[in-house]
This record gives sequence, C-alpha cells and structure tokens, in this order.
Amino acid sequence: MDLKALHSVSYGLYVITSKDGERINGQIANTVFQISSEPPTIAISINKQNLTNELITKSGLFAVSVLRQETPLSLIGQFGFKSGRDVDKFAGINYRTTPQGLPYLVDDALASIEAKVIQSVDAGTHNIFIGELTAAEVLKQSNPMTYAYYHQVKRGSTPPSAPTYIKENERRKGMDIYECTICGYEYDPAEGDPENDIEPGTPFAELPDEWVCPVCGAGKDAFEKIG
Amino acid sequence: MDLKALHSVSYGLYVITSKDGERINGQIANTVFQISSEPPTIAISINKQNLTNELITKSGLFAVSVLRQETPLSLIGQFGFKSGRDVDKFAGINYRTTPQGLPYLVDDALASIEAKVIQSVDAGTHNIFIGELTAAEVLKQSNPMTYAYYHQVKRGSTPPSAPTYIKENERRKGMDIYECTICGYEYDPAEGDPENDIEPGTPFAELPDEWVCPVCGAGKDAFEKIG
Repeated sequence: MDLKALHSVSYGLYVITSKDGERINGQIANTVFQISSEPPTIAISINKQNLTNELITKSGLFAVSVLRQETPLSLIGQFGFKSGRDVDKFAGINYRTTPQGLPYLVDDALASIEAKVIQSVDAGTHNIFIGELTAAEVLKQSNPMTYAYYHQVKRGSTPPSAPTYIKENERRKGMDIYECTICGYEYDPAEGDPENDIEPGTPFAELPDEWVCPVCGAGKDAFEKIG
Repeated sequence: MDLKALHSVSYGLYVITSKDGERINGQIANTVFQISSEPPTIAISINKQNLTNELITKSGLFAVSVLRQETPLSLIGQFGFKSGRDVDKFAGINYRTTPQGLPYLVDDALASIEAKVIQSVDAGTHNIFIGELTAAEVLKQSNPMTYAYYHQVKRGSTPPSAPTYIKENERRKGMDIYECTICGYEYDPAEGDPENDIEPGTPFAELPDEWVCPVCGAGKDAFEKIG
C-alpha cells in the first residue's frame, strides 16, 4: 500500500473557529467539503485532541474562514502550530464575529461561513462535524489558498516560471537550504524571507540571531541543512 | 446569507467506483478528504439517488481514481452527466481493477485508492462513507485536476497568460459564446473544441451538424447564445 496516493487529493486551507462562552479559538484545517445544497450543509474533520474540537462539541457551532492564496506563513503558523491552550491565537489578529459570535479572519479570508452542528460523527482520531449553514459572506475576490500551494511556498520552492527561480546547478556556495525540524518549513536563501524583511540572497548563516521560523516560531538552532 | 461563499472551498475531482457482484459503476465526485493517518481513513460524500451509492451500500467497498489535470471533458461527461442505470459507463474506457475487484481508471488517474466502508452516515440528501484504506497505488506523477480548473476549462475560459487568450473587446463578429443548457459547458469559438478536432476560430454556426457538447453529449440545439 503506497500512502503517497493520498498526496494527490486536493484541499483548500481554512481557519476553523468556535467558542464556548467568552472563550474563542481557531485552528488550521484542510478538511472541508459541502454535502447538500438544500439545506446547505458542510462537513469538517477535526482532531479530537484539539481545543477547537472541544469548543465545537460544547457550543454546537463552528465557523470557517476560507484563506486566500496570499495568506502569510506566519498566520498559518499562528493557527496551525500553536495550541489555544497555551496562547491566545487571536492576539494581534484582525477579526470580526459571525452572527452567533464566532470569530472569523478579516485580512486573509475570502469568505466566512457559520454553521450549527446537526450531526457529530466519531471517526477514530477525529470527529466529523456536519453543519447546516446559518450565515455565509463573501469577503474578497481572489484565489483561495490550496494545500498544494501552501506546501510549495513552505518548501521555499518557486515555480520555474517565477522570476526568482534559480536552477539547482546554478546555486552558489553558502546558499544551502535549511529545514525547520519542528514544522518542515524550508529556508531557501534564494528566496529569503520577505515576510520578515530578509532579502533574497541571504545565506542561512547570515540570518540575524533573533530570526525565527516564519511558520512555527522555532529558533535558528532548530534548523538543519538539507541541501 | 450569500451561498457564493461556498464557491471558495477548494476540491479535487475524482471518479468514485464500486461494484455489486459483476455489476460495476463509477461517478464523478469532488468530495473526498482524508480523516486519520493511523489507520489511514478517508471520507467521501455521495448522493443517495446515485447508482454508485447503491453499490457502495451493498458491497461496503469503494475506490477513488484521482483525476489528472489533463483529463478530457468527455471523460468527465461520461462519468458525471450520465447514469450507470442507463449506460455502461466503462464502455470504451481503459480500466483495471483493485485487489477487491473495483474498477479504476488507467489513462487519467494519478492514483487509485481502495477502501472498505467502516461507517456510513446519513447526511440528508447524501451519505458520507468513511472508509479504511485497503489498497493504494500511485499511477502517475502530474498535477491533479481541481474543481476550479475544471470549471475554468468547461467555461471555455483561458487565463490571460495563455497564448490563446483573446481580450473581450477584441472578440470578432460571429465569435459569440454559446452555453449548453444541459450541463453548462460554454463553447467559445476562440478556443474551439480541440478534443474533437474543432480548431480555434470556428464560429458556433460553422460547427458540423453532428457536433455534440463535449461534456454531456447534448446536440447543437441544446445551446443558447450567451455573449
């Protein structure tokens, strides 16, 4: 059985949010699909260990912020590689709330969808929550972030058609790629880290000591040279 | 509530197959996601009225062929706009079978995944089938067909970066776009219908009388001018 077959399944990228009383939380997920159109229902799959699962189970409500392609890695790191049990994930984030009071992202969401849980399915490590839409809003016209695109960006790889593309055999000394051992982000000196003002052409060794992984926030010592 | 919010959810495109004894069938679906990794499980959502739903319910088995981006519209029409109750959808199709004997596509599938149903969820108009993987194979290295890409191609629209792109205001007389009233395919004379040897630049009126919609097979009289 070659589980790489699962890599060809396509996904978008979403922040799923919920609340319990005053407590709000959200997490990255790629597992959202529509089920029926009348009434409009969607399904999401959420790991049972996550705080968001706990809040959805308690409130019977969830909201989906559909991320746009330009979403910075740092936002995905904030909602995907941290736990709401440890940090307030919405600190510093521009958000509004749905009619039922669930947070949704303003700057990086194409659309916001609010749903009430009509069925919760125990699927082993995860719950599938089936929700009937209670509110839906288009926020921006742009391309959605896909899981494939995110992995391409996170790998620091650039399509050959892009102006910053450098052929492997043209890679210069000191331009080795380093990978974050925590989250898999790859620092490619040819790309730099524009979100954090690191210009293309900056070798890993010349990154400032205070530089951290743009996805998960790990320090430089969590990185290993991979090529 | 603006249901267009649901249009920003990203999907791939798949042929879901099943069998009951000697009887095989398959259908287009865009609703596939992975749930857990140990054991590997996936969820699919299938309309209750479809023959494939009936076969999955009877056999407790389904297979997913992940379609590649180059999949011709005619194949999507064959599996998406016809019913296995009326036609043998696999007539003329190059297919092989999974270990349990379920058909999967050879020419246009990137991967084949076979699963046995471990849970069936009644979700109104649809069933969600949760399956544990029993076999998985990578067949090709290429890009998957996404639902967004399919709609772009079906609309006859071409990205501005493509060589065949013609600006709206450069459109010449006789180059009106016609839409299939059955399936929504748009015939754009600027694109032609290369799958059926209709060259770019062929006005709708000059299509041969025997020409049919490349997606659903409807005749020319099912088309209406839209622009």
